[in-house]
Amino acid sequence: MMANQKKFSSGGVEWSIRVGDGSPPEILVPHETLAGRVWLGLKDKIERLVSRVWRFLEKAWNLAVDDPRKVIHCLKVGIALTVVSLFYYMRPLYEGVGGNAMWAVMTVVVVFENTVGATLCKCLNRVVGTSLAGLLAIGVHWVARQSGENLEPLIVGASVFILASAATFSRFIPTIKARFDYGAVIFILTFSLVTVSGYRIDKLFDMAHQRLSTIIIGTSLCILVTTLICPIWAGKELYVLIYKNMDKLANSLDGCVSQYFDHGDEKTDKEDKALLGYKCVLNSKATEDIMANFARWEPAHGQFNFRHPWKQYLKIGASMRSCAYCIEALIGCIKSENQAPEFIKKHLRNTCLIVGSNSSGVIKELAKTIKTMKKSNTIDLLVGEMNSAVQELQNDLKSLSCLSNSDSPPFQEESETPGNKKTEKPQKATATIPLMGVISVVTFASLLIEIVSRTEAIVKAVEELSNLAEFEVTVSKQNQPNQKDEHTMHTSQMV
Amino acid sequence: MMANQKKFSSGGVEWSIRVGDGSPPEILVPHETLAGRVWLGLKDKIERLVSRVWRFLEKAWNLAVDDPRKVIHCLKVGIALTVVSLFYYMRPLYEGVGGNAMWAVMTVVVVFENTVGATLCKCLNRVVGTSLAGLLAIGVHWVARQSGENLEPLIVGASVFILASAATFSRFIPTIKARFDYGAVIFILTFSLVTVSGYRIDKLFDMAHQRLSTIIIGTSLCILVTTLICPIWAGKELYVLIYKNMDKLANSLDGCVSQYFDHGDEKTDKEDKALLGYKCVLNSKATEDIMANFARWEPAHGQFNFRHPWKQYLKIGASMRSCAYCIEALIGCIKSENQAPEFIKKHLRNTCLIVGSNSSGVIKELAKTIKTMKKSNTIDLLVGEMNSAVQELQNDLKSLSCLSNSDSPPFQEESETPGNKKTEKPQKATATIPLMGVISVVTFASLLIEIVSRTEAIVKAVEELSNLAEFEVTVSKQNQPNQKDEHTMHTSQMV
Repeated sequence: MMANQKKFSSGGVEWSIRVGDGSPPEILVPHETLAGRVWLGLKDKIERLVSRVWRFLEKAWNLAVDDPRKVIHCLKVGIALTVVSLFYYMRPLYEGVGGNAMWAVMTVVVVFENTVGATLCKCLNRVVGTSLAGLLAIGVHWVARQSGENLEPLIVGASVFILASAATFSRFIPTIKARFDYGAVIFILTFSLVTVSGYRIDKLFDMAHQRLSTIIIGTSLCILVTTLICPIWAGKELYVLIYKNMDKLANSLDGCVSQYFDHGDEKTDKEDKALLGYKCVLNSKATEDIMANFARWEPAHGQFNFRHPWKQYLKIGASMRSCAYCIEALIGCIKSENQAPEFIKKHLRNTCLIVGSNSSGVIKELAKTIKTMKKSNTIDLLVGEMNSAVQELQNDLKSLSCLSNSDSPPFQEESETPGNKKTEKPQKATATIPLMGVISVVTFASLLIEIVSRTEAIVKAVEELSNLAEFEVTVSKQNQPNQKDEHTMHTSQMV
Repeated sequence: MMANQKKFSSGGVEWSIRVGDGSPPEILVPHETLAGRVWLGLKDKIERLVSRVWRFLEKAWNLAVDDPRKVIHCLKVGIALTVVSLFYYMRPLYEGVGGNAMWAVMTVVVVFENTVGATLCKCLNRVVGTSLAGLLAIGVHWVARQSGENLEPLIVGASVFILASAATFSRFIPTIKARFDYGAVIFILTFSLVTVSGYRIDKLFDMAHQRLSTIIIGTSLCILVTTLICPIWAGKELYVLIYKNMDKLANSLDGCVSQYFDHGDEKTDKEDKALLGYKCVLNSKATEDIMANFARWEPAHGQFNFRHPWKQYLKIGASMRSCAYCIEALIGCIKSENQAPEFIKKHLRNTCLIVGSNSSGVIKELAKTIKTMKKSNTIDLLVGEMNSAVQELQNDLKSLSCLSNSDSPPFQEESETPGNKKTEKPQKATATIPLMGVISVVTFASLLIEIVSRTEAIVKAVEELSNLAEFEVTVSKQNQPNQKDEHTMHTSQMV
């Protein structure tokens, strides 16, 4: 009973104290209720814990299902580590954790990364950093030994201080940070370990030899496992990221324009998701930088040769982001309170939709160009179409300004072209156009024009890439040979 | 001579081959010239190398001068490492690199980070990861020993494989990646090292005890040095980053508006730099995320208590970025080819400048609020002023639309209010307004209006922060007590 009461006091229920006042027949009922409540409370807590763990596992499961390569990576780490562990576990030469096995195991744990480029970068950094620091440390060690017992700790301390500070500082320099950050850490580590060690020089050489060989065993194992079992190439990741982002950008643009003009229509969740694809473009700068950095370490693989112009992908990414900023502003227009009345929207609807779809068509064609690594022979035509659509939109905007005049012949003409029967309604309304609404449409349209000019920047960046990476020129006439011939004729005339 | 020629052949000078054709009197002159050229070539190369090294050093020097705290950090690393190295160097118990000293040195090298939060995070991760993995490994080791010689390597291998894979997978889960990434690595490392080790259980306990104690010595030293010698707090970095970015955003906005309307005036470099300040806002998402992540590990420091709402700074950062996207679009307007004619710009110039300066004033006031950590009592007034300026801008836009009509009384009225004498000129031109130019101004103005609404989002985010972090309420009447009283009266009326 006391225990029960005690448990309950944490719940802060005043009523349980009254129960202790000593009236046996009455106690029984609340006692059951008390025990029941304690049990319920416990059960509740356990259930909440279970459901929390369950949700966590569910999240992890979804993560694994979304990208099975992550699971493969984990298995690869497991394999590499098991191999190196068992190798040393079964070797009779081995003498506990302090021995050399440690360095091989440690190398595998620390060096094994998700992509081949990252693993190679870390491996090379580790080997070079260790060798350099080892050599330097042996030199310092020798000098310290020569200079007598008093000076020895001074020289050792000073050298550790100076080199550690200098190497740490070098990690702040951008060019070194990008490529040799890990090497600098390993340099400091090895240098201080070797300098501090009490070994004689001859023993040091032995130790250096052993340590270097175990590190090389560890790194080779990592490189083998990472390149042979389902390799994930940083370069390919970057390449896929760029062309997928391009598709997302195009879909966002399409979604934006159609949402603005067909506001009443209910959108599905999928379309909403497509609309927000541009956010991926905005947020992928860091990933792009990292991938491009690692891609440089990778050997030729798949369609990519060793000196593939990875930096150009960063330029493409930047131009895509500059386009995405404008889409962000477009979304602002969609959410704006000052919506244009429907008939004004209708006036610009068609041309805006055409400009939007042309522009997104160009972006999609660029994505295809990158995906297939073949120069597109329709891109010039598409850009031309996009520009003439912009011209038309500008003309429409001019005619829209005439709307403000009470008698509006251009609008009448325009509204007849779509061929719908509501022509009378807008004409009645012309006298009372809410001007803020017009402004919203005008802003939308001119942002669209800005997007077109930024799309051209993407075209340029992709063109540069196709020249640098020597994309193939497509000569095949797959589906509509005649039409394509016409296209190229048009293009050459335009150029 | 041969050597000279050989050296020269790398330069690819055909002429040096002709020299060898054997005509002594003639050789002397070119020989001298040859030697001279070799010398010049070498000198050139050396000079280039020296200048390259010099430029590198200069860059490093500038880096150090720009942020002396980086140098201090390097010295701190040097100090910590020297202390721990010398401590073990002079200890008689010590037995070479394989001994325990290693773990202390290694801990210092790997754990010491730029900010206190990052160091604390790594320290805790290292200690907890090592302990957990050590305990688990001892358990597995014991089970393996019990199950006979044949099963032993199987159990060891399987446990390493499963736990390494699982721990690696956990690093992909965002919540774990953000806080315990390093801990997972250390867990894998310790677990495989201990499991693989050939020690008996009693020795294992000894080793675990020693290793843990050296790691604790290393981490405590790191924590002491990082917090006591010129500490760099991640939280404070985030805080400074946010309010400085806010100032930059405000300056960019100001610069943008004035550059658009006073296009002809030559801008100084400094002004151009201020104009591009918004790019800092766009690019600082990654830094903000990292800093907020580390700030959570930090104890109370300066004005910040332990549970300071660091996440709110991320929200403020996001709202600032959303504002910066619009400024990006504004810059697009400035660069656009379709510039409005001067007289139309003049029509909107004053109100746009007022909206711009009001909006940037609000942002600057917010920056001040964060900087001083005191609730502003003028912010409501400033927001009110900003909104009424927007109202005025919208009215101006409406009157601009009337410009298109050939007889434009509203424009006449408007242009008289600024009080300049060029009233006739615009009136003459009204008949031939280039409409694309008007569109550019309208777009600029409505982007400005959008910026104002996004500024209000920043205001809200900062307000939330000031409530969460319990900023002081300013009651002091410093400069103009009467005016401030009026302000608050106005504000309360408006609210």
